[in-house]
Amino acid sequence: MKLNQFMKEYAEVIERNLELLYSKDSGLPIIQDAIMYSLLGKGKRLRPLLTLMACQLFDGDLEEAMPYACCIELIHTYSLIHDDLPVMDNDDYRRGKLSNHKVYGEGFALLAGDGLLNNAYEILIESIIAKPTPARLRAASIISKAAGTSGMIGGQAIDLYYEDREINIDKLEEMHSKKTGALIRASLEAGAVISKANEEDVGRVKIYGEYIGKAFQISDDILDVIGTKEKMGKTIGKDAKKNKSTYVTYYGLEKSQEFLSQTVRNAKKILEIYGSKASLLIELADFIACRDA
Amino acid sequence: MKLNQFMKEYAEVIERNLELLYSKDSGLPIIQDAIMYSLLGKGKRLRPLLTLMACQLFDGDLEEAMPYACCIELIHTYSLIHDDLPVMDNDDYRRGKLSNHKVYGEGFALLAGDGLLNNAYEILIESIIAKPTPARLRAASIISKAAGTSGMIGGQAIDLYYEDREINIDKLEEMHSKKTGALIRASLEAGAVISKANEEDVGRVKIYGEYIGKAFQISDDILDVIGTKEKMGKTIGKDAKKNKSTYVTYYGLEKSQEFLSQTVRNAKKILEIYGSKASLLIELADFIACRDA
Repeated sequence: MKLNQFMKEYAEVIERNLELLYSKDSGLPIIQDAIMYSLLGKGKRLRPLLTLMACQLFDGDLEEAMPYACCIELIHTYSLIHDDLPVMDNDDYRRGKLSNHKVYGEGFALLAGDGLLNNAYEILIESIIAKPTPARLRAASIISKAAGTSGMIGGQAIDLYYEDREINIDKLEEMHSKKTGALIRASLEAGAVISKANEEDVGRVKIYGEYIGKAFQISDDILDVIGTKEKMGKTIGKDAKKNKSTYVTYYGLEKSQEFLSQTVRNAKKILEIYGSKASLLIELADFIACRDA
Repeated sequence: MKLNQFMKEYAEVIERNLELLYSKDSGLPIIQDAIMYSLLGKGKRLRPLLTLMACQLFDGDLEEAMPYACCIELIHTYSLIHDDLPVMDNDDYRRGKLSNHKVYGEGFALLAGDGLLNNAYEILIESIIAKPTPARLRAASIISKAAGTSGMIGGQAIDLYYEDREINIDKLEEMHSKKTGALIRASLEAGAVISKANEEDVGRVKIYGEYIGKAFQISDDILDVIGTKEKMGKTIGKDAKKNKSTYVTYYGLEKSQEFLSQTVRNAKKILEIYGSKASLLIELADFIACRDA
């Protein structure tokens, strides 16, 4: 299957699975509405797709990986809602529509984020109770660590701390590696672990994840300079306006683009060993580099 | 052992266990500082103590229950930090000191709360990996549901929704039952489950939890009228100032005090069957009714 086809097909499957999570009446429409507003619809579903692709690479059962893929998307979505709040990035647009707090107010946006994070763990725990295998336990552990203070939240804290401070390139890389990279790596790792891949294979997709996480960030920084709001679905030129350090402010546009190409080449190289079995993930690395949104 | 002695002794044990969770260098002092600021020190540790007392009632191993007790305190603390934020209750004081966002700013307070919630699940998952027993899995499930959108977060959403709307007594009770009650019930239930109590026993401490949760809330509403800021360690008279519906605004002070006594009697009655074995929890019900802070 081609990447396009896989992404389209499985983004829809993920969407249906996400909808199912919130199909029951919660008895309090507004918090459910706020959650569904941000969770459903326009996401790229990059992280859950990575979980499924890693699962597919190691001949795992995609259905077995689905709850983990969905949980990661819940965690990602909560982080976007909280990140868009005025006390953080103060962003009015996300995924092509008004951000959560612009529609539901900051209080409900806060709770919707909290709710999504908590729901993710409710689902993980239920999935483990249904079948307490070492693989499921390990996948849950990988996801929880990636989302936590030593991962994504730690990265957000670095980002916030250096908002009005000089940041060096090492700290900038650490920030991105935690803020964006950790969950991307975990998405792949969880997919591999659920498929009972061996340690070497798990290690390889993790390194691949490190590269594409970085590629994703560099291309994000480039798009913040050369992208358009229509395509990105969020405010553009924010980094420059906020005087934020990015790969582009460090290396300049041209060198950043070179750096991006090199990072993508590295990502693809690590999966060469799997030949055409890894074609989805290999194509995906190019996709990340060439995306315009 | 007397309640006083148990609470003093085990509050210290809990404190040491909480400290241990954050003793490692996170590599980013500020988020760890913000977490430790709210987590350590002045808490009553009611919820984790309930877990330990329920565990003790059914001859469980207190050490086995400790990670669950600590996780509940992490979840409780995150909820306080987020609840104190200006977009929610906008409270400047908590546990006798400035609230988290007054010290670290709203962004870090947001992240400290997110971090605590996530850390709680990291710990739960690690504890299950260490020994994946049905009891541990069930305790984790109980805690996660109590903290989620059908429990605590759902209650906070009701609270927020009715901030400037007329609320009836049923909805007010539902709000409290979810916002405060759910985690209190879960604290007891988790302690009982970890001790491998039978279903009847688990059911009984849950009902006891329902009563003391309600008692706690009624006494909170009474204290908001007759308490002092010095003793409570938080702003007093806030409910009236915010025109908030409380048991006192519904029933008046005197009837609320009667209602409180009745609720405490009910709580104690349900545990009578255990005789002196339940003396800690029975004494605790009185303690909640008579507390001045």
